[in-house]
Amino acid sequence: MAVKVGIINVTGYAGAELARLLHNHPEVEITSITGRSEAGKKLTEVFPHLAEIDLTIEPDLTDSIDFVFSALPHAASAEACAPLARAGVAVVDISADFRIKDPAEYSEWYGGAHPAPDLLPAAVYGLPEIYREQIKSAKLIANPGCYPESALLGLAPAVKAGIIAPDVIIDAKSGISGAGRGLKLNLHLGEAAENVSAYGLDGHRHLPEVVQELASMWPVAEAPTNARPKVTFTPHLVPMTRGILSTCYAPLNGGAALDTATVRHVYEDFYREEPFVRVADTPPSTKQTRGTNHCLVYPTVDSRAQRLVVVSVIDNLVKGAAGQAIQNMNLMLGFPETTALTGLAVYP
Amino acid sequence: MAVKVGIINVTGYAGAELARLLHNHPEVEITSITGRSEAGKKLTEVFPHLAEIDLTIEPDLTDSIDFVFSALPHAASAEACAPLARAGVAVVDISADFRIKDPAEYSEWYGGAHPAPDLLPAAVYGLPEIYREQIKSAKLIANPGCYPESALLGLAPAVKAGIIAPDVIIDAKSGISGAGRGLKLNLHLGEAAENVSAYGLDGHRHLPEVVQELASMWPVAEAPTNARPKVTFTPHLVPMTRGILSTCYAPLNGGAALDTATVRHVYEDFYREEPFVRVADTPPSTKQTRGTNHCLVYPTVDSRAQRLVVVSVIDNLVKGAAGQAIQNMNLMLGFPETTALTGLAVYP
Amino acid sequence: MAVKVGIINVTGYAGAELARLLHNHPEVEITSITGRSEAGKKLTEVFPHLAEIDLTIEPDLTDSIDFVFSALPHAASAEACAPLARAGVAVVDISADFRIKDPAEYSEWYGGAHPAPDLLPAAVYGLPEIYREQIKSAKLIANPGCYPESALLGLAPAVKAGIIAPDVIIDAKSGISGAGRGLKLNLHLGEAAENVSAYGLDGHRHLPEVVQELASMWPVAEAPTNARPKVTFTPHLVPMTRGILSTCYAPLNGGAALDTATVRHVYEDFYREEPFVRVADTPPSTKQTRGTNHCLVYPTVDSRAQRLVVVSVIDNLVKGAAGQAIQNMNLMLGFPETTALTGLAVYP
Amino acid sequence: MAVKVGIINVTGYAGAELARLLHNHPEVEITSITGRSEAGKKLTEVFPHLAEIDLTIEPDLTDSIDFVFSALPHAASAEACAPLARAGVAVVDISADFRIKDPAEYSEWYGGAHPAPDLLPAAVYGLPEIYREQIKSAKLIANPGCYPESALLGLAPAVKAGIIAPDVIIDAKSGISGAGRGLKLNLHLGEAAENVSAYGLDGHRHLPEVVQELASMWPVAEAPTNARPKVTFTPHLVPMTRGILSTCYAPLNGGAALDTATVRHVYEDFYREEPFVRVADTPPSTKQTRGTNHCLVYPTVDSRAQRLVVVSVIDNLVKGAAGQAIQNMNLMLGFPETTALTGLAVYP
Repeated sequence: MAVKVGIINVTGYAGAELARLLHNHPEVEITSITGRSEAGKKLTEVFPHLAEIDLTIEPDLTDSIDFVFSALPHAASAEACAPLARAGVAVVDISADFRIKDPAEYSEWYGGAHPAPDLLPAAVYGLPEIYREQIKSAKLIANPGCYPESALLGLAPAVKAGIIAPDVIIDAKSGISGAGRGLKLNLHLGEAAENVSAYGLDGHRHLPEVVQELASMWPVAEAPTNARPKVTFTPHLVPMTRGILSTCYAPLNGGAALDTATVRHVYEDFYREEPFVRVADTPPSTKQTRGTNHCLVYPTVDSRAQRLVVVSVIDNLVKGAAGQAIQNMNLMLGFPETTALTGLAVYP
Repeated sequence: MAVKVGIINVTGYAGAELARLLHNHPEVEITSITGRSEAGKKLTEVFPHLAEIDLTIEPDLTDSIDFVFSALPHAASAEACAPLARAGVAVVDISADFRIKDPAEYSEWYGGAHPAPDLLPAAVYGLPEIYREQIKSAKLIANPGCYPESALLGLAPAVKAGIIAPDVIIDAKSGISGAGRGLKLNLHLGEAAENVSAYGLDGHRHLPEVVQELASMWPVAEAPTNARPKVTFTPHLVPMTRGILSTCYAPLNGGAALDTATVRHVYEDFYREEPFVRVADTPPSTKQTRGTNHCLVYPTVDSRAQRLVVVSVIDNLVKGAAGQAIQNMNLMLGFPETTALTGLAVYP
Repeated sequence: MAVKVGIINVTGYAGAELARLLHNHPEVEITSITGRSEAGKKLTEVFPHLAEIDLTIEPDLTDSIDFVFSALPHAASAEACAPLARAGVAVVDISADFRIKDPAEYSEWYGGAHPAPDLLPAAVYGLPEIYREQIKSAKLIANPGCYPESALLGLAPAVKAGIIAPDVIIDAKSGISGAGRGLKLNLHLGEAAENVSAYGLDGHRHLPEVVQELASMWPVAEAPTNARPKVTFTPHLVPMTRGILSTCYAPLNGGAALDTATVRHVYEDFYREEPFVRVADTPPSTKQTRGTNHCLVYPTVDSRAQRLVVVSVIDNLVKGAAGQAIQNMNLMLGFPETTALTGLAVYP
Repeated sequence: MAVKVGIINVTGYAGAELARLLHNHPEVEITSITGRSEAGKKLTEVFPHLAEIDLTIEPDLTDSIDFVFSALPHAASAEACAPLARAGVAVVDISADFRIKDPAEYSEWYGGAHPAPDLLPAAVYGLPEIYREQIKSAKLIANPGCYPESALLGLAPAVKAGIIAPDVIIDAKSGISGAGRGLKLNLHLGEAAENVSAYGLDGHRHLPEVVQELASMWPVAEAPTNARPKVTFTPHLVPMTRGILSTCYAPLNGGAALDTATVRHVYEDFYREEPFVRVADTPPSTKQTRGTNHCLVYPTVDSRAQRLVVVSVIDNLVKGAAGQAIQNMNLMLGFPETTALTGLAVYP
């Protein structure tokens, strides 16, 4: 019998993508979807491409849901998820609310007190390539942010192998769907097309998440537990809809005489068994992952500057949001990890 | 046991799309793929997004193929398909070679003598919404052109119901993938982006195909068998990758006092049982079909001018090529018609 | 001494384009700019690309303005322009308010009573290719709508030569800047990119303007004064910022044996002395006019259907708005007609 | 009397942009244009947007040219420019041939022996913000590469002020016109649209140019003359036509307690008198410079990581090529520096 799934706030891009992918999941049935301003409408009125999903958007979840995805903005999401989580319902939260372990740091970056700090200790950061076993037994998942997802997968093998110094630059280029479906002037096609811009130059909210996760990966000898890696993160808006390409830079550790081939071996070993991460043979591009849960990483050594340069690409709405959430659900419920995520990229 | 499928000329956009979709078809296995200039390469070298399909591009199909798709250009395609078809292999030809019933007309529009006129009588035009029964028992399918696919689905209900005069204008807007993956200056992003242009103003090759099919649909009283409807077809290139929107115009037949609601009923009745065609509630846009085998049609009556105006949208590479071809294969082999074609649109 | 120019509502795309072009006009000085929500800001805060224009946006025009452009929405524009026009200030109104000669028809399409019907008789429709002499002596210009501008320039030579029947279809494709700088979901890059859609299918406000102007051009023998040509107008949104391409269709009049060459002569004769309209040698594309005041027209005869097909392209913000307005000002003030409008297209 | 100007290889994007801008230069007249494959055609046949320039493309320059721009590819350009330069004709070479001072380094990066090493000592690197006085008296200008132009303008004030360490990362995002008008698969709209990719990861040809120029700027105490700054340069292709945004990173020198405000003062002082470089008040975007010769720079300090982050944007075809070349010509010929370069950005 199918697992009954609910999607809170289906009316954003992450919510719609959850619906798209779950519709073809053989083990689950979407039985309840919510939205705020659009409550009362049929899903197809908001998203004609989801016409085959015959559901009405409701203000709140119906009862008897087995599994919940929340695609609400931060704060609102924790408020909606907390009672469910406390009642024992399995939850994947796509917002930032359960990612930052330290409630004080959460307050610093997101403002206001954390709505449910009691749930933070049990929440697992939903990056299966790092936390697969913990995810399997978790009931509350903090789905990674789209930028951290691409950066962490690009850096994890090097950090864990101890080959780079804790001094990292992440220069990320994102399609505009990462900024959501809300109306903002900089997302107007007239402004965004044929245009590239940097933003968040005084600190983007995904920075503390990246720092926290990199810090926990770093070998102790390199970065003592009370130290945190120095990370500069610069997001950019590029004129496309989907996709993130993160270019990550870090100095190679002095001792090692590392070349690109050696570093590639480190990465290939790290990701050998991963269903969704591949070390690319040529510099990857975002479109190679469009619509899919894949991440392609491409590490190289700049031998002139003795620097690691890693390019990492994902679809921000799939591996960076809805697909990652479903991968987490599959792990939590014991389904094959790739269920409903086997589609190949819609290219070109 | 899986049906062994071959794809001739996998290296174009239609070929790649066949591979993408067939990869998730549970009843078939792609066992042979060919390409001309790229023979000897792994498929992933040409299309990194197809890395999961571990096949080498060969100059020719291997033996023991049960079913063949040809995505070659015209003339070359008939030459490749003819021996297979004569040997009894089931073939879907995505090129134009078997669409035009009259070899003289084929020569007029495509140049040169038809490579296999003996096969024309048995070839079935692969538009299931019109020829479903014939497709089920066919061995050689002429897959429709992308423009005709959208225009015919937009016009068929009105033509068959006798509500329009045989004086049709089709103004079609296509993404550039319809022009193929070959290198041409007008497809260079520098030229094509932020640009719209008309082409084929002195006659596009899809015109005779549209005329032939409309003529065969028209009620005899309206258009005697020796008459052909007057059709103007203007294709346009718009700055996007996939999608065709055809806006079709025709005068309403004088007798009828038709309004939009009445015409919508005609269309809804016509497409009620169709798995892939839907009469849209609001003016449809191409992106609502991206990556899918759907066609959305939207008929209206311009009461001031007493004219039918129908908007019809498809993904030119799916319902306009590879998806339509697989739908035909499903019919020919007795599989459920929607197998491997249940994906929803990758939107946004 | 420079003419003192004011721009009412500089904060939309037409207003900004007026500022861009007027900044390099040697005979005028922009001395006052207004905006509603942005009043009090420097122009560069709203439009960094206009940083060289050191002006503050004010709620109202300052005194002692010699010439005014209004880029307000309809109704608001007439209300702002009327006192100026009555006080004898020369005005070019970019809104629709003074285009429709019949106030009842204005009310039907735009809603509400016309704010200044007394000014309608003296207002001149600002299409110099048709009304140049009247413009020279006018004090109040109704600048054409962007769609009518492209369609009328595409059809005028054929209409005036009496070679087409009064049964016209205009299928227009516009970049999204035509819909303005306001926030609307369908202009969000996530929705608009890689997408084409039709809109206004039950009647777009530019239709009566086209009908009025075509009617006034039509030779009386063809369309008696009390008759109006039958016009279907379908606008489409295409994924680009600027540009309109209108494809216009009309049946050739029966008597004439017209071919493309003959029709081209008609057009070339008509536009021979025009500084901004050119009969293109090859099918034109919108980008060839980007940023300029040019219109390229390309007439052909579909001899199979005995139909005229004309492609016409403009930049909707220049020849379709701000550039046309400045051309009108040049005529009104006796400056060389091309002053400040000599820039060539920014291509690619 | 107008200076007679020739453009060698007008048929690429830089050549066309030279023609566009020079057409409105009151002191010069384009009298000769060359192209290789297109010789014999009218310019308008290749570039309809340049129809007002009534010239025929010839295989070679005509005699009696006063000033030459070469937009040929490297090697071919030096071969074409050398005889002219030796004959005393003033030349601006847009290719890379005279940028690298060391012929051995040129050979390493561009292959083959330098075609005219004798001319290297007298060639001046055409970056007026650094070499204005030398340019005024030069006869042979090496116009900067588009990437170096944006990066050097972004870094020069900090380097010259001695506030950063010689350990620089330049992460650059370019529209595809930087790759030229030639036919390449990665520039096909089907491949390039909705896509971002990194390239040149094993060393791009603009790297030695950046290193050479940064080295010559660096205060001796920081980087002794025999040392070269450590520079990593990663170019990316983004889905747009024009524009480069370079994000530059470097560690702040330890001694200084620098914040963003202090660094901004350094930049504002440096560029106060420059007509084309502006320190932006908000993070700039490429479109704010489209079609213009402007560069906008935006320096910030990442205080967490004690790093300078500078965003720098230009139009790669104008300040990064043709506009910069004309600015150099203006300086060489004693015209006001901004002549023909006063156009504001075509935005949106």
